[in-house]
Amino acid sequence: MNIDRIVAAAERLAGHAHCTPLLNAPLLDETAGRRIFVKAECLQRTGSFKYRGARSALSALPQQARERGVLAFSSGNHAQGVACAAREFGISAVIVMPGDAPALKIANTRAYGAEVVLYDRTTGDRDAIGTTLADERGLSLIKPFDNEDVIAGQGTCGLEIAAQATEAGVGEADVLVPCGGGGLSSGIALALEARAPHLRVRPVEPKGFDDVARSLIAGTPRTNARMTGSICDAIVTPTPGQLTFPILKRLCGPGIAVPDEDALRAIAAAFFRLRIVLEPGGAVALAAALLHRASDQDVIVVASGGNVDSTVFRNALSRFGKTD
Amino acid sequence: MNIDRIVAAAERLAGHAHCTPLLNAPLLDETAGRRIFVKAECLQRTGSFKYRGARSALSALPQQARERGVLAFSSGNHAQGVACAAREFGISAVIVMPGDAPALKIANTRAYGAEVVLYDRTTGDRDAIGTTLADERGLSLIKPFDNEDVIAGQGTCGLEIAAQATEAGVGEADVLVPCGGGGLSSGIALALEARAPHLRVRPVEPKGFDDVARSLIAGTPRTNARMTGSICDAIVTPTPGQLTFPILKRLCGPGIAVPDEDALRAIAAAFFRLRIVLEPGGAVALAAALLHRASDQDVIVVASGGNVDSTVFRNALSRFGKTD
Repeated sequence: MNIDRIVAAAERLAGHAHCTPLLNAPLLDETAGRRIFVKAECLQRTGSFKYRGARSALSALPQQARERGVLAFSSGNHAQGVACAAREFGISAVIVMPGDAPALKIANTRAYGAEVVLYDRTTGDRDAIGTTLADERGLSLIKPFDNEDVIAGQGTCGLEIAAQATEAGVGEADVLVPCGGGGLSSGIALALEARAPHLRVRPVEPKGFDDVARSLIAGTPRTNARMTGSICDAIVTPTPGQLTFPILKRLCGPGIAVPDEDALRAIAAAFFRLRIVLEPGGAVALAAALLHRASDQDVIVVASGGNVDSTVFRNALSRFGKTD
Repeated sequence: MNIDRIVAAAERLAGHAHCTPLLNAPLLDETAGRRIFVKAECLQRTGSFKYRGARSALSALPQQARERGVLAFSSGNHAQGVACAAREFGISAVIVMPGDAPALKIANTRAYGAEVVLYDRTTGDRDAIGTTLADERGLSLIKPFDNEDVIAGQGTCGLEIAAQATEAGVGEADVLVPCGGGGLSSGIALALEARAPHLRVRPVEPKGFDDVARSLIAGTPRTNARMTGSICDAIVTPTPGQLTFPILKRLCGPGIAVPDEDALRAIAAAFFRLRIVLEPGGAVALAAALLHRASDQDVIVVASGGNVDSTVFRNALSRFGKTD
């Protein structure tokens, strides 16, 4: 994995993925006591960065394999990314999703034309269901992060950050990235290593599900004790990826863990100050920048997704949506 | 007023105003039965297009006059635009606002450092208050739309639309624009006349406050019967501007009026499909595109602002925020 692979992915994504804006707001800076730049991946096609990796992986498949169709496991954002990219290629997609995934994510995945197969997270065997389907129909499995073309696709977000940060006059800075399996964090870290080595990725996770932070301290992969109990469904994963962890270990700064409640506070801040819609898992990096500040330095934050059920969003606003 | 003045404004705004993205979403297109492109001015500095005109006007003032400070009348978005631009120039700003303006807009205007003077819309004489203050302190009045530099500033949004529409492969199309006094509509119309004459502006107003639509039919300015009773506070104005109306008359297609309830529906659609936050007045053009469709042609919509109190937004989601 290197920068060439990310540049190649960027060429395949041109005209498909959006170059999302790097937002900034004077009143947000004031609250934070430093300049905060927000890479708004919630404005990406399908509402999260996952479209980048999905389109990158599908476009890299040999044509014959691609035409047989694809399969993915996902609680929602990878599902939508794969389903949307599959529709663009005119191929079929089967997405295996847990029955307790957010209703909006299931509905959207279906709306993109994918066949959604639900399973029970506590009793069902996701891998068995997927393997059987893939074997029967000759589908290609598109893993959510342990796939070099997916990592390269997410890395295109890092290419944009490098260029936009230069334009905004950002010097040395941390780049806080919501982190599940580490596809986005590792892709961005690789891009910044080549294009903006003064910017350092720091993965941000939900408190109690900080396998990456603990793995970075230990130097070897650690596992979360459980897989449910956070509202940050997009970034709850059991353990860092096999391909992603070595990259994270080599390039990233220490991880940060934020409580769910702070993700809700960040959703309200993004609503008022940036006029963007974030989901809890997409808001943890902003939460870290606003509420777990360690320095006065400029900071870049990736707002990785905005596919949120309206009840969760309304709850965030009613709890933390005071005007002043 | 011509394109040169808009190009000059664009040069003064470079590095200050954002080039906002032209968003598009497959699932939104599906709902609408045609391609919808959304110019997301809610992502503009201060949360609305008004910053463009305010910064344009302040930067065009002679330095001596500018340093004495500025004054503006506004229910909120022009207020924030002028207050923010004034702070950037390090000058003082006095903003005369109705006491029933949205709390968020009053709070933000103060947060940018402006002195806010509230008046009672039913009993107070806004002009008298403003004139006295301006005379006493030598402040320059920055009108919200009847000012050529303001119109030129709003026109920079049209320059971006022309370029972005070409890139997106849009041919002949209507450009639906939320319309109060007509500064944004006339500025965009002038820019498109020069740069993309196949794109035609159509002003969109709240039902019952469609003075511009009626004026366009009559050929002479008409006045609204009342000034309260719509949730679209940003675009309730008594009558078209003296400078803007001749431009609107020469260049725009027929106006469209949408009920408040449809603005709320559009807020919910923008939340789910575009992950942006719109205020009611900023959502009327999207409402027209989604709910008052007249053709299958591509359509461009300006989402002009996103400064909305959380209670209004929660109300829109609880009424129209179903997932499917």
